[in-house]
Amino acid sequence: MHYVTGSYKIIYRMKDDKILMGHGSGGIMTHELIEKLFVRYFKNPILDEQGDSALLKVSGRNLAFTTDSFVVNPVFFPGGNIGNLAIAGTVNDLAVSGAVPRYLSVGFILEEGFALDDLEKIVESMADEARKAGVVIATGDTKVVEKGKCDKIFINTSGVGELKDKYLNISSGKKIKPGDKIILNGGIAEHGMAIMAARNELNISTPVLSDCACLNGLIASALEVSPNIRFMRDATRGGIGTVLSELVQKKDFGIRIDEQTLVIEDSVRGMCELLGFDPLYVANEGKVIMVVAEEDAEEVIRKIKKHPLGKKAAMIGEITAEHSGKAWLETSVGGKRMVDMLSGQQLPRIC
Amino acid sequence: MHYVTGSYKIIYRMKDDKILMGHGSGGIMTHELIEKLFVRYFKNPILDEQGDSALLKVSGRNLAFTTDSFVVNPVFFPGGNIGNLAIAGTVNDLAVSGAVPRYLSVGFILEEGFALDDLEKIVESMADEARKAGVVIATGDTKVVEKGKCDKIFINTSGVGELKDKYLNISSGKKIKPGDKIILNGGIAEHGMAIMAARNELNISTPVLSDCACLNGLIASALEVSPNIRFMRDATRGGIGTVLSELVQKKDFGIRIDEQTLVIEDSVRGMCELLGFDPLYVANEGKVIMVVAEEDAEEVIRKIKKHPLGKKAAMIGEITAEHSGKAWLETSVGGKRMVDMLSGQQLPRIC
Repeated sequence: MHYVTGSYKIIYRMKDDKILMGHGSGGIMTHELIEKLFVRYFKNPILDEQGDSALLKVSGRNLAFTTDSFVVNPVFFPGGNIGNLAIAGTVNDLAVSGAVPRYLSVGFILEEGFALDDLEKIVESMADEARKAGVVIATGDTKVVEKGKCDKIFINTSGVGELKDKYLNISSGKKIKPGDKIILNGGIAEHGMAIMAARNELNISTPVLSDCACLNGLIASALEVSPNIRFMRDATRGGIGTVLSELVQKKDFGIRIDEQTLVIEDSVRGMCELLGFDPLYVANEGKVIMVVAEEDAEEVIRKIKKHPLGKKAAMIGEITAEHSGKAWLETSVGGKRMVDMLSGQQLPRIC
Repeated sequence: MHYVTGSYKIIYRMKDDKILMGHGSGGIMTHELIEKLFVRYFKNPILDEQGDSALLKVSGRNLAFTTDSFVVNPVFFPGGNIGNLAIAGTVNDLAVSGAVPRYLSVGFILEEGFALDDLEKIVESMADEARKAGVVIATGDTKVVEKGKCDKIFINTSGVGELKDKYLNISSGKKIKPGDKIILNGGIAEHGMAIMAARNELNISTPVLSDCACLNGLIASALEVSPNIRFMRDATRGGIGTVLSELVQKKDFGIRIDEQTLVIEDSVRGMCELLGFDPLYVANEGKVIMVVAEEDAEEVIRKIKKHPLGKKAAMIGEITAEHSGKAWLETSVGGKRMVDMLSGQQLPRIC
């Protein structure tokens, strides 16, 4: 789910009259499309409020509900494929809302002529990923379009999770306050660079693997040790830069990130430099940003470092009272740099 | 949701090695794909059991959950567009399970260059349709792919509905027995022929309009007057022929349909004859087949005839003890014809 968080302003006309690739970037243009079209027409309190999942009441119980379509190109990439990506993406959107992911739906759009062997590999990896995450694929749909009318395979997954009352505020981050610490569970930009390597057939000595993974286990372990996890978001399209800049928008706090604490594997850093990408804005598919009360932060890091997906977890910054509405990075050489929202697009079809 | 109902047999290899258009028909090839691939890998009791929606338990409450992707071509057609179709399709999949549709997700895949004015029309009609049906669009996602990598716009909707215990058996039709009556709420083949007319730019004096509509209101009114509605299914891809033949598969009852009771508007019949389509297998998007206990059938028909979407409702046949596992049509001229599952494809990209 990537509808805008927080308040918004309706302006009738958009700048463009056609859909551009940037409208799918997860950055400023995506936000404009959402605000000026989807939120305008679909307006309702649930849609207006939300983060990565919608928070619903059904028969008096809290549910989290989310959807994501996957159009990644190429379909197979180092570290995963469109199938396990589609499972992990939706599991993570539920988990970062504080929900326990329970059921997924799967909608396939297939291009005529797509190899059944490839479809089988994808379906098998979806089943494996779902099993590992403890979610049930409960319902599905399949459509086929003529050759040339879609690009091999697109997959939509939607998900339903159970949400305890005590976690209702995680999604909106309403309880965030200055002094809270920001935790990240490992290296950034790995998914995006794995896709770029696959797309460009780069021959790199240390191949970059996508970090694509279901984070619900890691998140559950963190929630076990702290009742003061105040916000979580998986940093997918648009990278951690987009999550951080969205988080401070129209808020009365700022964010300070310490560049030295960011983990960027050498091979990823090399590829980013080679191809001219800023790793802050490159997609991840197995990274969660957590905002945790100062007193619990060390304990949360200690706990998630024990999880296979959190070995390189680190405290990367904090919520500040100053610079409200802004996220800024203290660079390794002692400078400061604003972390703005991505404008235009960086990497199309990354997920 | 169009995964296979009832039991199935796993055969490892499929006949084909590539995806063919027929795999999306809703007929035999779709069933083969589902059984040999999706059900095989995703196997779980919920997926195995189900009809149009998955029936879930979440925090002790019954939920219905369903998904559908829409790839209809053309995007705008007489009587609707891909937007209200996407809302109605998922609302109906929930409603025919006996659930009250509550929340929808919306996932857009947009082609670079798609006109924003067209997108706005689609979004507006989705909002209208959701409002009429009383459902909330709770969450969404937008992806954009390069020009030529999808056909204008694809939409996935998933839905969550509340389901009372007393309706838990409607979806599977477990309570169906010989003597039950089969009710249909109006004319068949209208959606399919509206799409064909739009696709072929046929200049017809009496234009055929799609019957695309949300049926939850009509279904609720029927459930009000009868506790003995034993099965419902909206007859979409594959038409009423496919629903009827699926319903009797591996069952110890048969179905007899009286051709004379089927409503087919003259313009629809004319187009079917002109283009060589059997109206039994042409898609509807606002028609529900109900199996109702004999003693309640008249009352249900009386009630739904008062609803705007049920004016031409009729009893079209019955469940029989003989010819178990078969659906057969008594033709107007006194003959008998088997109603089999659609093989290959009839109309691609009808929804």
